[in-house]
Amino acid sequence: MIHPTAEVQSINIGLNTFIWQFCVVLEGATIGDGCNINSHVFIENDVIIGNNVTVKSGVQLWDGLRVSDHVFIGPNVTFTNDMVPRSKSYPTSFLQTKICKGASIGANATIIAGNEIGAYAFIGAGSLITKNIPDNTIWYGNPAHHKGYITNKGILLDLDYKDKNGLKHKLKDD
Amino acid sequence: MIHPTAEVQSINIGLNTFIWQFCVVLEGATIGDGCNINSHVFIENDVIIGNNVTVKSGVQLWDGLRVSDHVFIGPNVTFTNDMVPRSKSYPTSFLQTKICKGASIGANATIIAGNEIGAYAFIGAGSLITKNIPDNTIWYGNPAHHKGYITNKGILLDLDYKDKNGLKHKLKDD
Amino acid sequence: MIHPTAEVQSINIGLNTFIWQFCVVLEGATIGDGCNINSHVFIENDVIIGNNVTVKSGVQLWDGLRVSDHVFIGPNVTFTNDMVPRSKSYPTSFLQTKICKGASIGANATIIAGNEIGAYAFIGAGSLITKNIPDNTIWYGNPAHHKGYITNKGILLDLDYKDKNGLKHKLKDD
Repeated sequence: MIHPTAEVQSINIGLNTFIWQFCVVLEGATIGDGCNINSHVFIENDVIIGNNVTVKSGVQLWDGLRVSDHVFIGPNVTFTNDMVPRSKSYPTSFLQTKICKGASIGANATIIAGNEIGAYAFIGAGSLITKNIPDNTIWYGNPAHHKGYITNKGILLDLDYKDKNGLKHKLKDD
Repeated sequence: MIHPTAEVQSINIGLNTFIWQFCVVLEGATIGDGCNINSHVFIENDVIIGNNVTVKSGVQLWDGLRVSDHVFIGPNVTFTNDMVPRSKSYPTSFLQTKICKGASIGANATIIAGNEIGAYAFIGAGSLITKNIPDNTIWYGNPAHHKGYITNKGILLDLDYKDKNGLKHKLKDD
Repeated sequence: MIHPTAEVQSINIGLNTFIWQFCVVLEGATIGDGCNINSHVFIENDVIIGNNVTVKSGVQLWDGLRVSDHVFIGPNVTFTNDMVPRSKSYPTSFLQTKICKGASIGANATIIAGNEIGAYAFIGAGSLITKNIPDNTIWYGNPAHHKGYITNKGILLDLDYKDKNGLKHKLKDD
């Protein structure tokens, strides 16, 4: 379903994907099945989005972004693709930023270009990400630091892999 | 006044409320009288907004938000309603976030779900709010800390209740 | 080129300036030549923008903003024009914020009203700017601190004016 107020130039939009009000999707973008692209989102050309991805409102996905299946991108999350932007001066190629399977990026976080957010990792709201984030880790702050672990299903663990009841967990096989 | 480019599905919009360009207001939302909803705002269903509220551009008000009278929400302020969001996985109910009478939330602040912003409190621009904020207090930083007090009318006070001229104030009766 | 979905009320738009989808430009605004105003941008009345300026998506330029030539404003960058905003209470005049020639403001940064960003200065993504920023300096953090220098052409230097290879540079004459 593409909302009539959205401007979707791409024909590579998967089945059962919703693109809501006032979105812009440029011609070269690819979006998988079962995605939910909330209102006021902008998606540039060199962007590939997997299946069952959620992009909340106010997000822009710039050239160079690769978003795997089941990723959650919170509202007003902001990406970059150029380390030293100057007006009207374009790099020969943009940095690639990769968001791996099942990762969640909290509201209003900022992601510096060229980094990779690992599978099922969790970035806290309002954080600034300046480096690669390993799988199943929790990071937050400005700049963000490693604060704990998270299972694929979303159970929060401290740096000793213990949940809030003191129980140890494995990350991948829950 | 509802701008013709806005998509307002709710019929519960008060008198003398302005809803500007490219806003989306879902069917279940309630908005009081004399509000000013700037461009590019998204308001979900389970949202109740009082009278004389200002919401600047680029804000989303998600299910679970309760906004009292005379609240100011700055541009690109970002709310959440789920502590551990995962794509396509929905909590049984969303956390409620309450913004009390006369509070002001500065530009681009991020508010973690489930917290209450007290009456006439003032959240500085760019802050991250992770806890309940008492009435008439000033908080800023990422995460935000308690930095001072503010009278109902907006006079800034330090932690000793003194204004910039060293004069002590009461908070509520000015 | 003004995209048909944009609402541009001003007639003071320069040659070869692009204003993209779902932008709003109020009647009093002035925009120079060769600018690129990305989607979902709001520009108020008392705003003057020079030539060859880039404004990425999700930005609002409020009354009191002065933007010189060749400035880059990243996505979701957020400005303010009132130090203590209260709903329905308006200052007699808004604070002016000046962005000087060639400056670059990184993604999702927040700029406190009344400050000046110097020529060719570089504000890191996710930063909070609370003071005047001298020409050709690099600032980042929340709040932002002085972290280095940058030449007009965008070469990053440390606090000893050395680039990543240890070579000293002059700032202005490269």
